[in-house]
Amino acid sequence: MLIGIKYVYLRQIIDNKKLLIIMQDFIYYAPTEVVFGKKSESKVAELVTKYGGHKVLVHYGGKSAKASGLLDAICENLKQGGVDYVELGGVVPNPRLGLVKEGIKMVREQKIEFILAIGGGSVIDSSKAIAIGANYDGDVWDFFEGVAEPKCCLPVASVLTIPAAGSEMSDAMVITKEEGEIKRGYSNPLTRPKFAIMNPERTFTLPAYQTAAGVTDMMMHTMERFFSHDNDMVLTDNIAISLLRTMKECVHDVLKNPNDYENRAQIMWGGSLAHNGLTGCGLLGDWATHQIEHELSALFDVAHGAGLAAVWPSWARYVMKENIQRFVQFAVEVWDVPENSDDPEGTALRGIEEIEKFYHSIGMPTSIHELVGRQVTEDEIKEMARKCTRNNTITHGHFKVLKAEDIEQIYRMAQ
Amino acid sequence: MLIGIKYVYLRQIIDNKKLLIIMQDFIYYAPTEVVFGKKSESKVAELVTKYGGHKVLVHYGGKSAKASGLLDAICENLKQGGVDYVELGGVVPNPRLGLVKEGIKMVREQKIEFILAIGGGSVIDSSKAIAIGANYDGDVWDFFEGVAEPKCCLPVASVLTIPAAGSEMSDAMVITKEEGEIKRGYSNPLTRPKFAIMNPERTFTLPAYQTAAGVTDMMMHTMERFFSHDNDMVLTDNIAISLLRTMKECVHDVLKNPNDYENRAQIMWGGSLAHNGLTGCGLLGDWATHQIEHELSALFDVAHGAGLAAVWPSWARYVMKENIQRFVQFAVEVWDVPENSDDPEGTALRGIEEIEKFYHSIGMPTSIHELVGRQVTEDEIKEMARKCTRNNTITHGHFKVLKAEDIEQIYRMAQ
Repeated sequence: MLIGIKYVYLRQIIDNKKLLIIMQDFIYYAPTEVVFGKKSESKVAELVTKYGGHKVLVHYGGKSAKASGLLDAICENLKQGGVDYVELGGVVPNPRLGLVKEGIKMVREQKIEFILAIGGGSVIDSSKAIAIGANYDGDVWDFFEGVAEPKCCLPVASVLTIPAAGSEMSDAMVITKEEGEIKRGYSNPLTRPKFAIMNPERTFTLPAYQTAAGVTDMMMHTMERFFSHDNDMVLTDNIAISLLRTMKECVHDVLKNPNDYENRAQIMWGGSLAHNGLTGCGLLGDWATHQIEHELSALFDVAHGAGLAAVWPSWARYVMKENIQRFVQFAVEVWDVPENSDDPEGTALRGIEEIEKFYHSIGMPTSIHELVGRQVTEDEIKEMARKCTRNNTITHGHFKVLKAEDIEQIYRMAQ
Repeated sequence: MLIGIKYVYLRQIIDNKKLLIIMQDFIYYAPTEVVFGKKSESKVAELVTKYGGHKVLVHYGGKSAKASGLLDAICENLKQGGVDYVELGGVVPNPRLGLVKEGIKMVREQKIEFILAIGGGSVIDSSKAIAIGANYDGDVWDFFEGVAEPKCCLPVASVLTIPAAGSEMSDAMVITKEEGEIKRGYSNPLTRPKFAIMNPERTFTLPAYQTAAGVTDMMMHTMERFFSHDNDMVLTDNIAISLLRTMKECVHDVLKNPNDYENRAQIMWGGSLAHNGLTGCGLLGDWATHQIEHELSALFDVAHGAGLAAVWPSWARYVMKENIQRFVQFAVEVWDVPENSDDPEGTALRGIEEIEKFYHSIGMPTSIHELVGRQVTEDEIKEMARKCTRNNTITHGHFKVLKAEDIEQIYRMAQ
């Protein structure tokens, strides 16, 4: 019964915890219609019309959407389907507030009623920000600063080309304000996209680094939820572990053979499931690593997934004693570390070492100097920690509440 | 690396199959807002209002909704929230067309615009049928006969009390026409419920038999999708296996201690995930066992889950050679049968024996005579097979297409 160990093990943890922790109530709401498969983009006009779009902002990034022919194909399909549209390109990784404001202006002037993102998380996030800003009289940044809440949101949808951020089904977005290099996330169920078109073939041309950073990001979306003290939702845990194991195996196949449809498909669908809420049902989640990374990518403009890989092991070593059993479970269930009940700390540490080996095997960094090519200075560390914590304690960080000095220490460990 | 066997094994199957089978495209659309946890029913008026309901049909079964005080609590909450409502009780297991028609009449006469189901799958299915029939001039049974398609559907939502059918998030319903004892399923994305309120405490009073039949039904919803030839969506497989393993373990705990909140919660959420489409992404699925069982419960009015347990092992033995590897995977991954590559058939058979042991351990039958207390006659077998196949071949049955004589044989094996 060797294979059963995994599940028996999970149950024991529950039995020990049952009297200590009360299960979290939760809301699961993931209304996005996912149209997945070859040629799925041919349904774009039909879907836009179904969800009430007549005049559409086609929002995209740069060269690749044009070079691949996807943008033209989408526009042609919209034309054929009688859907009016205007284009707005130029979204960059870590999407900027300036372009969001430009989009809001276009939407108002041209009476646009639907935002269609062609791209990955950056383009979808930028689209969501335009969609909540369009009917708000104030500055859209108010939402990111937490001083206002949107009352409505234009419908948003996407043709996904980069599996990573999970924005295609999520209620979340991250925008960078150029002035002061401030990167902020914002979540609101109103922003859940209406549909997401996903054709794994469209991801064949993704460079290896971007593929690996994407998988790192989706695995981290699952891990941020997994590292929680309220760990008695076994079904959520088991689904999360399945997702992590599937992703870590598929990524190697895809890096070897970029045109591997089946494995590209696992990754594409995994990215959505990792961030649509499924892997967090019944858990509070943590999200400190995302906050810590946001300051890194705001300052150095690095790929978000790579930034996460660079800081997670240090976060993990810093906080693991808060709930060592959760780290033991992670090591044993996801990374096949043999269980040693006499040495839970050793088991937990071996799990962290395994993920470091994994990151290196897919070309991801596990330290900041690997990420940005140099050590960060003490001044930079202090500045990032200050921005990250804003009001003394980190906004998230349910696993362990972190103050500025904790964050500084994590940056130092990650150097 | 013992624990990793499971996933390595999955990958080998894929590698062998890759050239033979093309992955299925899929649509995943599960827009229901799930509000899960203690006291969640206190949000009912707020949610009905959010989804546009002003005048509501409160649809329910019989004694238990009243005796538990739930019905009164819901009605009081609606009143307090300024939502007008009328009540229609009397839904029975294997819900009847007669009451659906009564509901349609009430909806039309009283200008009702929202159907709120208080109960389990039968009540929700009956609600969905009322919702698609309300604005259709013809006989609502037309949809079940496949001679018409609804153009619209009133909004449906539920306060779930019986985790089993998964109707709270699904697009499907099953209704029994009294005349001729005809039981038919119908699916349409328009019928996906707007919200589902799930409080595991409301399931504490479920009798052991109904709890076990419910878990059997949800496991079967996953198995019907799992037994497919297009088995290269590893992520879906891994999630399905996680779900099956979690359910089979939790049910024993709940049967021992009916007030076990955590395990009731796994089962309640598992029932929804088993049938909201998640476990079928990228797979065609089979559904023959459901069709075969429908005739049994139409004739003998037995619990659907129990009927599924009574016939599945016979279906499995009859069809397993069509894709023995899928049955081997099921035996090894879900039931911990040791793998023996020299004897795939023996491994597959041991998996079927394991599920029979499991069914008996939770009080479910594994044969028709255990289910209905007597052997069925040859005439009954022939009549059920005729009704089940309708036009020579079974409507579903992608794993193996079954004709009337195949179905007869399965009923005989299940005697």
